[in-house]
Amino acid sequence: MSEPTLDILGIGNAIVDVLARAEDRFLEAKGLNKGAMALIGPEAAEALYAAMGPGVESSGGSAGNTCAVAAGLGARVGFLGKVADDALGQVFAHDIRAVGVHFPTAPLKGGAPTARCLILVTPDAQRTMNTFLGACVEFSAADVPEAEVARAKVVYMEGYLFDPPAAQAAFYEASRLAHQHARQVALSLSDAFCVERHRHAFRKFVREECDILFANESELLSLYETDDFDYAAEQVRAEVGLAALTRSEKGSLIVAGETTLQVAAVPTKVVDTTGAGDAYAAGFLAAFTRGLDLAECGRWGSVAAAEVISHVGARPQADLKALVARK
Amino acid sequence: MSEPTLDILGIGNAIVDVLARAEDRFLEAKGLNKGAMALIGPEAAEALYAAMGPGVESSGGSAGNTCAVAAGLGARVGFLGKVADDALGQVFAHDIRAVGVHFPTAPLKGGAPTARCLILVTPDAQRTMNTFLGACVEFSAADVPEAEVARAKVVYMEGYLFDPPAAQAAFYEASRLAHQHARQVALSLSDAFCVERHRHAFRKFVREECDILFANESELLSLYETDDFDYAAEQVRAEVGLAALTRSEKGSLIVAGETTLQVAAVPTKVVDTTGAGDAYAAGFLAAFTRGLDLAECGRWGSVAAAEVISHVGARPQADLKALVARK
Repeated sequence: MSEPTLDILGIGNAIVDVLARAEDRFLEAKGLNKGAMALIGPEAAEALYAAMGPGVESSGGSAGNTCAVAAGLGARVGFLGKVADDALGQVFAHDIRAVGVHFPTAPLKGGAPTARCLILVTPDAQRTMNTFLGACVEFSAADVPEAEVARAKVVYMEGYLFDPPAAQAAFYEASRLAHQHARQVALSLSDAFCVERHRHAFRKFVREECDILFANESELLSLYETDDFDYAAEQVRAEVGLAALTRSEKGSLIVAGETTLQVAAVPTKVVDTTGAGDAYAAGFLAAFTRGLDLAECGRWGSVAAAEVISHVGARPQADLKALVARK
Repeated sequence: MSEPTLDILGIGNAIVDVLARAEDRFLEAKGLNKGAMALIGPEAAEALYAAMGPGVESSGGSAGNTCAVAAGLGARVGFLGKVADDALGQVFAHDIRAVGVHFPTAPLKGGAPTARCLILVTPDAQRTMNTFLGACVEFSAADVPEAEVARAKVVYMEGYLFDPPAAQAAFYEASRLAHQHARQVALSLSDAFCVERHRHAFRKFVREECDILFANESELLSLYETDDFDYAAEQVRAEVGLAALTRSEKGSLIVAGETTLQVAAVPTKVVDTTGAGDAYAAGFLAAFTRGLDLAECGRWGSVAAAEVISHVGARPQADLKALVARK
């Protein structure tokens, strides 16, 4: 087996975010569930876009954000995800390549446009997300090249990828290839509502395929249908070799066999919490694939998350390498 | 002659901004003139975009920014400018309509893509702009409908529109129609380098067509090829009925026949000066078309400029009506 030439291969929905301010009464009038991520079709996306205020566009996607942060920490990173052959697809491809991420997936031609997430920020700084998956629904097992999986130490997949149907097959294909090449499979649960939509599929994948699990408290509780965090953590310990469970300002809990580690959060002024989990996973995996111990993996996760929540937008703006070097 | 149903009709290049951070050495390596606006062709735009870091997209354009600010102040505003029938064109059209601006210009089909301005922000917060005019070069006199000009109290044109050749004819057509319908013609000089590129055309237009002139110090000095501000201000007084000359933190000077008014700047923490002049013109014209006196026009200009320079981006983020209501 050859030496891995990538540390992390991320797989996820390739999405461009459109951020706009909105009042609470706008969410109410449109029947939007504040703070949640909802999937919407092309007509609903067009209608909501026409009704909402002026926007700011930037590359997003959960695993895409993780890849950008991990690359900023010096990890060698690849990303698989489906954009369309249009201007927003070029924006996504440019932005992820500009931070040094290898992005080999061919754009979709002549089909749906590049996915976008219409994000409404209310005066209380909460984000309500409305995702039109567009070209992402065409991402399938055929978009998971064996060579790309074989060359990465860890394949990292976002739970949101359970939403487009063909991507579930891609998940299993990526996992099969990874294990065949003695690589590890990491999963982020992404969102409590997403877990609820696909709980059975998540449970099966976590139990049978997942080597490293990332989840926040509400996602974990949803996965095991409990309101007891300690119980859920013990379930995870029994089912997954390594799990990092994030708890906002309470930091994170790392569970690995008989080991349990409490990791502190890095204090910061919170401006926008979007991407905190994506950044934590990035920091954790960048340290992990570099062979650092679990305490250091958790610390890198906390540092990366703190940077991302200190400004608007889920991609890093500071020199992350310098931030983790400072102890 | 019927009552005007618009206060301001802006005419300008319809541009989407792509903002990215860059180090000074990047500008040097690419031979870019720091702080200036340069026009670049499609190949240069593609090469620069490929080399630059990840970006954030938002609607821009000098007159487009002015229209958005004026609409935020409650003025009835229209905008003429050429986007392409592509995703960035939809972004521009959405953003300007979302703030209530009437935008009737049909998008260009099957030609150049929507214009973009690649903006590199160096660590000292300076912006170096590289504009690919794209579809804007197709904007011509045919895109200036008589009915739109006839219904607006003031036609406001950005000097940047002297760059695409066909737009010069559009300038004169708009001015001819405005005067034929007893409306006023306002011009912003936009940029000292733009004045240098087209000084003869600017001088002629200012002298023969312009009723209201907006210029900052360096643009004005470039127009009259002098380094004496007082001399330049007297030239303007002789040539234009009304001029508002902006001088950054020194405020602005309003010159109208025998009247001379000093207007103070509104103190604010400066984050990003881009769009200060656009916002000043918007505030001035919103007050002017509402029939307020010149001191109040200047104050509205100062308030709008202060809001826009207090954050990143040239379009307003605060409730401008509330800001001008506070004395």
